Amino acid sequence: MSSPGMDEASSIQLCRVMLPDDANVMGNVHGGKILKMIEEAGSIVGTRHCNTQNGDRCIAALVRVEKTEFLSPVFIGEVVHVSAEISYTSKHSLEVQVKVIAENILTGAKKLANKAALWYVPCSLQNVDKIMEVPPIEYASAEKEEEGRKRYEAQKIERMETKARVEEVMPPRPNSERHTVGFSQSSLIHLVGPSDCTLDGFVYGGVAMKLMDEVAGIVAARHCNTNIVTASVDAINFHRKIRKGCVLTVTGRLTFVSNRSMEIEVLVDADSLVERQIEKYRAVSAFFTFISLDKENKPLNVPPLKIEGDDEQKRFEEGKSRYLQNKARRLAEKERQQ
Amino acid sequence: MSSPGMDEASSIQLCRVMLPDDANVMGNVHGGKILKMIEEAGSIVGTRHCNTQNGDRCIAALVRVEKTEFLSPVFIGEVVHVSAEISYTSKHSLEVQVKVIAENILTGAKKLANKAALWYVPCSLQNVDKIMEVPPIEYASAEKEEEGRKRYEAQKIERMETKARVEEVMPPRPNSERHTVGFSQSSLIHLVGPSDCTLDGFVYGGVAMKLMDEVAGIVAARHCNTNIVTASVDAINFHRKIRKGCVLTVTGRLTFVSNRSMEIEVLVDADSLVERQIEKYRAVSAFFTFISLDKENKPLNVPPLKIEGDDEQKRFEEGKSRYLQNKARRLAEKERQQ
Amino acid sequence: MSSPGMDEASSIQLCRVMLPDDANVMGNVHGGKILKMIEEAGSIVGTRHCNTQNGDRCIAALVRVEKTEFLSPVFIGEVVHVSAEISYTSKHSLEVQVKVIAENILTGAKKLANKAALWYVPCSLQNVDKIMEVPPIEYASAEKEEEGRKRYEAQKIERMETKARVEEVMPPRPNSERHTVGFSQSSLIHLVGPSDCTLDGFVYGGVAMKLMDEVAGIVAARHCNTNIVTASVDAINFHRKIRKGCVLTVTGRLTFVSNRSMEIEVLVDADSLVERQIEKYRAVSAFFTFISLDKENKPLNVPPLKIEGDDEQKRFEEGKSRYLQNKARRLAEKERQQ
Repeated sequence: MSSPGMDEASSIQLCRVMLPDDANVMGNVHGGKILKMIEEAGSIVGTRHCNTQNGDRCIAALVRVEKTEFLSPVFIGEVVHVSAEISYTSKHSLEVQVKVIAENILTGAKKLANKAALWYVPCSLQNVDKIMEVPPIEYASAEKEEEGRKRYEAQKIERMETKARVEEVMPPRPNSERHTVGFSQSSLIHLVGPSDCTLDGFVYGGVAMKLMDEVAGIVAARHCNTNIVTASVDAINFHRKIRKGCVLTVTGRLTFVSNRSMEIEVLVDADSLVERQIEKYRAVSAFFTFISLDKENKPLNVPPLKIEGDDEQKRFEEGKSRYLQNKARRLAEKERQQ
Repeated sequence: MSSPGMDEASSIQLCRVMLPDDANVMGNVHGGKILKMIEEAGSIVGTRHCNTQNGDRCIAALVRVEKTEFLSPVFIGEVVHVSAEISYTSKHSLEVQVKVIAENILTGAKKLANKAALWYVPCSLQNVDKIMEVPPIEYASAEKEEEGRKRYEAQKIERMETKARVEEVMPPRPNSERHTVGFSQSSLIHLVGPSDCTLDGFVYGGVAMKLMDEVAGIVAARHCNTNIVTASVDAINFHRKIRKGCVLTVTGRLTFVSNRSMEIEVLVDADSLVERQIEKYRAVSAFFTFISLDKENKPLNVPPLKIEGDDEQKRFEEGKSRYLQNKARRLAEKERQQ
Repeated sequence: MSSPGMDEASSIQLCRVMLPDDANVMGNVHGGKILKMIEEAGSIVGTRHCNTQNGDRCIAALVRVEKTEFLSPVFIGEVVHVSAEISYTSKHSLEVQVKVIAENILTGAKKLANKAALWYVPCSLQNVDKIMEVPPIEYASAEKEEEGRKRYEAQKIERMETKARVEEVMPPRPNSERHTVGFSQSSLIHLVGPSDCTLDGFVYGGVAMKLMDEVAGIVAARHCNTNIVTASVDAINFHRKIRKGCVLTVTGRLTFVSNRSMEIEVLVDADSLVERQIEKYRAVSAFFTFISLDKENKPLNVPPLKIEGDDEQKRFEEGKSRYLQNKARRLAEKERQQ
C-alpha cells in the first residue's frame, strides 16, 4: 500500500494472531474483531498525522466508516495484517484507507479479507469540542487528489442525509412469532470501561463497531439458527462522541432478507449513569449484512422474513433497494475488472 | 421481569455470547463469569437508581449476595440474558433481583440458569465513606413491599452473624497427602487493574466473585481430577471496599464433601501495595459448592475427604449441617411446587 | 531491521496502542505485556519460517529467551512497534531477534524500549514430540553467520547448566517479618484457557512470561511499597511444554537487593488437573530485576533485604555475583560505544 510521495508518518501496519475468543464456535473470526483492528490502525495513523504540526495536541475522532465488504472468511490461528494509510485530507478531516490480509502461517496462503475507508476529524485535547486543522498530505498525482476530493464531497452529502433518520427508537418486542422482525430483535448493554477509551476518556469507534457486529450476529443467528458471518457493513456514521462511564445500549433488528442474506439495522444509544444533565442520545447507527453458512463454509438459504405492519414494510422496501443497488454495483465492478 | 408500577430506571437487561475464554476446556461456562455478569447488571441498575435524585452523585457498592444456585449448565456459543430490577429499598440500601436465562440461538432453546438477589448501598463520589439515602421505589402491592421488608431484616441479622468468623486465616499446607484438605488448598494473587474498577477506583464486587469461583474450581478439580462446575454459592458478604492498586489474595480449601458435592470455603484478603498505613484486611468470604461431571454432563461420585485434626473435623461438621439444611430446603420447595 | 538477503517470510512487524489494562496505576506499561508481544512476534515469524518447506506442518515452540533489558519505560497511549526477524538457524532451532520501539503519537517522540533474542524449535503438529528440521536462512555476510553460530553454542552450554537448579521448590512462608524474603514471597495460580494456547493446545511462551512478570512485580511492590517497574530479565529457559487444561503455579521470591534494584527468582510449575498420570513439573524458571520509581519516574532507594538462614545467604551471594557481572558488562558496553 505504500506509494511514493507518502511520508512514513502517514501509514502503519499492525498484525495479530486470531485466538479462539476472536471467533464463533465454528472458528470464523467475528467481523466485529476485524472492524476493531481496522479502526485501531486508522486512529493511530490519523492521530499521529494530525500532531505533525504546531498547535494543540489532538486525537483523531472517527466520524464515518464507508461501506465495507468481508471478502474472505478469517479463521482462528491465522495472522491478520492490517495496513492503513492516509489517502485524503480536507481542511478539517482526513480519510484513511485500510487493507486487511489474512495469512495462514502453516500453508503460507494469503487472502484479502477486507478493504475499508474511514473518516476522522482532529479534536483538541485542551477542548474536545474544538476541531483542529489537518496538515495536508502530498499526493502521488493530481488524479489521486481529485479522486479523494470526490470521495470527500460524496460522504459529506451522505452524512447530511443520515442525520434525518437518527432519532428513531426500537421498542422491545416480546413474545413475537418465529421469523418475524420482533422474534429476532436483540439488545445488549455495555458499561464502558477504561480499556474501551482513549487517554482522554472517549470511546474508540472500533469498540462500538465490535458491539454492533455482536448484536447483529445474534439477530441473524436467531433468525436462521445456523453459523452466520458478517458479509458487509453499510456506511457507519458516528453522530456524537461517547464518554467513559457511559452505558451503551446496542439494539439490532432485521430490516430485509433476500434468499441468501439478512440486513440488520443496528442503533447505539449512550446514557450517562451518573450525570443527570446528559440525556440519553443516539451515538451510532448502521446496517450490517450477514450470510448463513453450512459446515463447509458454503452459503445456505435464509428463511423469509414475516413482515408485520406498514413500518416494517417500508423498512423492508428500503432494505431491498439498498440490496439491489449493491448487487448492481458489484456486477458493474466485476465487468470493469474483466 | 417487568411489572407494572416499575419505572424504566429501575430495571435493565444485558446479554452476551459466551466465548471460549468464559468456559473450561469441556465447554462449561464458569460460574464466576455468570456471577460477574449478575453483579454488572446489579451495579448499573443500582447506581442509576441512586442518582435519580438531587444531592451528591454516587455509586452503588455491593454489600451482599444472597445464596444462589446454578440451575442449568451454560455452554460456549449460548447467549446469556441477565435481567435485573430493584425489588426493595430501605433508607440506605437497595435489593436487586436478577434472573439469568441461557439461550441456544441455534435451537431456540432457553433455560433458567440462575436467580440471585444482591444488596447495594450508595456511596457518595465526593466522600466514599458517606452513605447516601436511597430514593424509594413504588411497589406493585403492599404484599410485595412487606415481603421485601422481611428479606431486608433477615439479611441484616445474617450479616451481623458472619462478622464473627471473618478474622480466620488459612495457613498454607505444603506436601499434603492426596484427598486431604491440605492437598487441594489453593491460593492466587491478583493485582487489581483499571478494568476491575469503577470510575472512582473501587473494585466491582463481580471481579472478586469471579476470582473466588476460579480458586474454588481449582480446589475442586485438584480433589477429584474431573470436569467440575459450580452448583451453588452460599450468601457472600462484602465486609469492606477494595481499592485500585491493591493485591488480592484469594484462598480456597475444602470444608465438606458429600457423595456428589464439594463445599469450598473461599477467603479474599486485600493488601495495599503502596499505602503502608493500610493493613491487610479480610474483604470477602463465602462457601462455594461444586459438583463433578462426566463427559455427558452427568454427575459423578466425589472421592471422600481425608480429615486431619480437630479444626478440620469441626469445619466438616459445620459444612455437613449447611449441606443437610440446603437439602431439606430444596425438598420443601419441591413439595410446595407440587 | 530488514537487511538485504532476508526474504519477507523471515521478518514481521506488529504494533498496538497501550491501554489502561496494559499498565499499572501509575501508567507504566507492565514489562510482562511487552514480553508477551515480543513472543507473539517471535512465534509468528518462527512458525511461518519453519513451514516454508515440505513435510509435516509444525509450530515453533519457545525454548529460551536471552537476557533482556527494559531500556525506557512505556506509557498508556503510546504505540508499541515490535519488529522481529530470524537471525540464525541451526539444524533444529532458530534464533529470532526482536526490537521494541515506543512511539508517542502526540509528540512524535520514539524511543527504544527493549531488544531481545528468542530461540525456537519446530514441533510437528502430527506428533508434538517430533522436532522438525529448520530451513536454513541466507546471511548478509559470513561474519553474521559466524556471530550467530557463537550465540547458538553459548546458549546451548547455558541451557545445560540451568537444568541443574530446576528441581528446587519454594515452600510457603507465612507470618514473616517485614523486609525478609518470606514477607514478600508470592504465588499465583492460573488455569490455562483457550486464548492462552496455540491451535494445538500448547501455551504460548509469552503467556507464561506475562504471569512471571506479574508475580515478580507483586513481590517487588510488597518489599518496597512504591511504584515498581521491570528493569531486566535474565535468560528464561522453557524446560517443558505446557498443555491446555493445566493449572500453572507461579511463585516469586527475592534473592538479592542492591541499593537501587531487586532480583526476584520466579518458578512456573504445571499441573494437569484432569490427567492423573502426569505429575506436576517445573516448566519455566528465570530471574527478574525490578527498580523502584518516584512520581517523576526517578529511581528510588530500595530497603535492604533481611537474610535468614544459609540458603537465603547462598542465593543472595549468587544474585550479587549476577548483579556485578551485569554491571561490569554494561560498563564495558558503554566504553566500547564511546
